[in-house]
Amino acid sequence: MCPGADTTRAVVLLSGGLDSATTLAIARAEVGACYALTVDYGQRHRAELDAARRVARALGVADHRIARFDLSWIGGSALTDPGIAVPDHPSAGIPVTYVPARNTIFLALALGWAEVLNAEAIYIGANAIDYSGYPDCRPEYLEAFGRLAALATRAGVEGRPTRIRAPLLELPKAEIIKTGARLGVDFGLTLSCYDPDDGGRACGVCDSCRLRAEGFRAAGVADPTHYRATASA
Amino acid sequence: MCPGADTTRAVVLLSGGLDSATTLAIARAEVGACYALTVDYGQRHRAELDAARRVARALGVADHRIARFDLSWIGGSALTDPGIAVPDHPSAGIPVTYVPARNTIFLALALGWAEVLNAEAIYIGANAIDYSGYPDCRPEYLEAFGRLAALATRAGVEGRPTRIRAPLLELPKAEIIKTGARLGVDFGLTLSCYDPDDGGRACGVCDSCRLRAEGFRAAGVADPTHYRATASA
Repeated sequence: MCPGADTTRAVVLLSGGLDSATTLAIARAEVGACYALTVDYGQRHRAELDAARRVARALGVADHRIARFDLSWIGGSALTDPGIAVPDHPSAGIPVTYVPARNTIFLALALGWAEVLNAEAIYIGANAIDYSGYPDCRPEYLEAFGRLAALATRAGVEGRPTRIRAPLLELPKAEIIKTGARLGVDFGLTLSCYDPDDGGRACGVCDSCRLRAEGFRAAGVADPTHYRATASA
Repeated sequence: MCPGADTTRAVVLLSGGLDSATTLAIARAEVGACYALTVDYGQRHRAELDAARRVARALGVADHRIARFDLSWIGGSALTDPGIAVPDHPSAGIPVTYVPARNTIFLALALGWAEVLNAEAIYIGANAIDYSGYPDCRPEYLEAFGRLAALATRAGVEGRPTRIRAPLLELPKAEIIKTGARLGVDFGLTLSCYDPDDGGRACGVCDSCRLRAEGFRAAGVADPTHYRATASA
């Protein structure tokens, strides 16, 4: 899954969270030109898009596109369906914050842009350890997408398949934070909360906030997250 | 790739063209409830969406969704980029009407909806014979997507992977037309042209029009296509 030294262009999926910001920083260190792709999929936390813009600007990208792509009609997730509440406690199995086929949709979009750009790799901040039960963050899933990509595109047919690189796949949250800090990521620009307020301040109680706060503690790195006044983290 | 007799729900990708209309008719014969999905991806031929609505209504579906999903920012295709002309002659290799990663994006969307609906299968009108050089219409591509789907979703994790069914995959255009006619498809409702006028009338000269007209001739079925006055087919 390593892109090798000859990678000159990569598409980087950027959500505005801590993981994808670190992934972009890794890509910036490995690749000549990074093209950041953020998907505006009707998520409830619109502040995530502002965070993505800040991170792309701070880390330096060749281009940053925000693709509007409404997923709210699919339903079935607390992140896109106003009728499903974001839970304030850890859940067993696949949580309601899982968005159906989300990584498949995001990787497919990235693959289309990579084909037009002649980009050799796609970077994604998927994580199999802190993945909260999402099936499409597992190594076997990402390997299967790589095999699909080799068959799906003009570049693949011509023997130059787009590689999928998930540099955080096996890293605990604390290691992700240490890696990002070493590469100069300003985590104060990022937003991980599933349920932020209008000002982009984190709730401190959702699964994502808990994982993030625990990661900063374990890494021994100061937590720059902007919590709202009532947050408990 | 056959869904089996126990398939009660399927998502059917419906473009409004001849192939996907026939695919929906096949699904209607095989499956209890069909959920048609049309992707409004910024294509130049908006009349395609009207055709999809007509076909869904005529064949009877449990639901029909038109997912707005702008692909024009990706560029690289004559079907979404106004700067690239639709060719009026057959092209060698992968043509400029190929939309980067289109089937991957469409199947990913269908997979998300299938997961929410608990649908057992996705039907797609991909064709490997008349596929005009598109890499994502080949059997090996569709098999790879099936393997990906089994790893990508909650249903897959629980041992109920969504199957990909492409019933037209190995059929020549004339056989597709004969099959559709036998199942009662009104081909006058469909639109295959890459470059129709505002009234939805076909140009008669693009790759897609040529394949379609030749198919009707070879099938011995009257061609109900609405051509514009200047069309040569």
